[in-house]
Amino acid sequence: MTDLPADIDAKVRASFAQQSMMASLGAEIVTLEPGRVALSAPVQDGFKQQQGFAHAGVTFALGDSAAGYAALSVMPLEVEVMTAEIKINLLAPATGRLIAEGRVLKAGRRLVVVAADVFAELDGTRTHIAALQGTMVPVNL
Amino acid sequence: MTDLPADIDAKVRASFAQQSMMASLGAEIVTLEPGRVALSAPVQDGFKQQQGFAHAGVTFALGDSAAGYAALSVMPLEVEVMTAEIKINLLAPATGRLIAEGRVLKAGRRLVVVAADVFAELDGTRTHIAALQGTMVPVNL
Amino acid sequence: MTDLPADIDAKVRASFAQQSMMASLGAEIVTLEPGRVALSAPVQDGFKQQQGFAHAGVTFALGDSAAGYAALSVMPLEVEVMTAEIKINLLAPATGRLIAEGRVLKAGRRLVVVAADVFAELDGTRTHIAALQGTMVPVNL
Amino acid sequence: MTDLPADIDAKVRASFAQQSMMASLGAEIVTLEPGRVALSAPVQDGFKQQQGFAHAGVTFALGDSAAGYAALSVMPLEVEVMTAEIKINLLAPATGRLIAEGRVLKAGRRLVVVAADVFAELDGTRTHIAALQGTMVPVNL
Repeated sequence: MTDLPADIDAKVRASFAQQSMMASLGAEIVTLEPGRVALSAPVQDGFKQQQGFAHAGVTFALGDSAAGYAALSVMPLEVEVMTAEIKINLLAPATGRLIAEGRVLKAGRRLVVVAADVFAELDGTRTHIAALQGTMVPVNL
Repeated sequence: MTDLPADIDAKVRASFAQQSMMASLGAEIVTLEPGRVALSAPVQDGFKQQQGFAHAGVTFALGDSAAGYAALSVMPLEVEVMTAEIKINLLAPATGRLIAEGRVLKAGRRLVVVAADVFAELDGTRTHIAALQGTMVPVNL
Repeated sequence: MTDLPADIDAKVRASFAQQSMMASLGAEIVTLEPGRVALSAPVQDGFKQQQGFAHAGVTFALGDSAAGYAALSVMPLEVEVMTAEIKINLLAPATGRLIAEGRVLKAGRRLVVVAADVFAELDGTRTHIAALQGTMVPVNL
Repeated sequence: MTDLPADIDAKVRASFAQQSMMASLGAEIVTLEPGRVALSAPVQDGFKQQQGFAHAGVTFALGDSAAGYAALSVMPLEVEVMTAEIKINLLAPATGRLIAEGRVLKAGRRLVVVAADVFAELDGTRTHIAALQGTMVPVNL
């Protein structure tokens, strides 16, 4: 795996730092490679559903951002990406620490098709809790 | 439109009150009818993406909860619902006050197919910002 | 509902006539209005799944084409549309005569978000058998 | 990869033989392993869209059946599966010979989450033309 060019790496990190949602979730970037981005965040008290697991919106938000930054990592410097649509299948309850791994399936000029898997780590066990598939749209800044 | 039975109405409101995610988003129930639930929340500072609009995770969370409670409203008292999968198309930026309207497309014994539309109200204008379609699974408590 | 301009009407019908899949399915256009297109086809012997109902691919094909032509009906004359992605929820078995009703949710410059509902008519009863939601991409001819 | 038990292998092949849609498409089973099924079919004249590529309904049908049989391959003998929902992203035009590879992401008691990738082979080149993600429902025969 080659490294990201320094200016693209800086662009992705700056965009991530501007997402107040990511800060509220306590999320951080754990992998940043061309076409592959992983984010991690703990399941926090203020972001749960009625049974005490993370709300699907949290799992979605991490998967969406991981997939979006995977797309952004392969775009030219002057291009931003926006989420057009995503589908999520929830596989298991979200508890412990979440890791969202985003990747690019196909980077086109008009559309970037992306996927993400979200895992939960608890007591040394890693569980696949969600699979996402969707579309990002490149937009000139 | 008939009213919800009092015990079902109470069950839905109690479940909503237990979702700390809804409290963090500042969300409230604005409609609660059989098979139709609307939620509303302001776009808050801590829940934005890099351009200052609500993060897609917020729009998704509201649409998911509105659709899930629409499903719950038509279930027997001893049944809970879980989100199996949802797809969201984002139509316009999320800003101002968000209203998510959930509805049941088909309530089966094994699966409840649901949809939701999310609107943004700003300066007296209402914009359709997202359409969701997905599946809830009934689970005995 | 206003009528379609004659040249757009002709463009849609010519494109439909070129889809050999629609001919093989025995499909015809039953409604063609700006942003709304309905197609109809019988469930034929050669297009079934293992239980004797129409294969999901048939229901999908009709819904996809209905939604795509709904999108095409609101595009300028020199623009074609391509399906980028669609999600389908199957609600009931497909038998009898199928009617797919496509509509435009949002027509943008880059993307056209569409939906379709598919119904089955048998012995005078009309059943909602599928809901589709997806994205078409306008392409200059 | 272990082999499928003989009775499960026979059940899957018998179900496939009953899908008249697969026969009409000229489809055959090329891989049949626990949780992994690949189908192949040529793009035929009667199944095209307006530009001469395979209609999205064909790509969907092959991906759906490959994913469904991947699910069926890990179910007990007395269980059938039905497609509840699927999402497809189309990545490139479908031409030449299509190969759909289905796999199980999570086999639960109530739901089986599946995925499929569809490839087109033409002149010795293999192109990824579609990604599907969806849900199958186990049903007792």
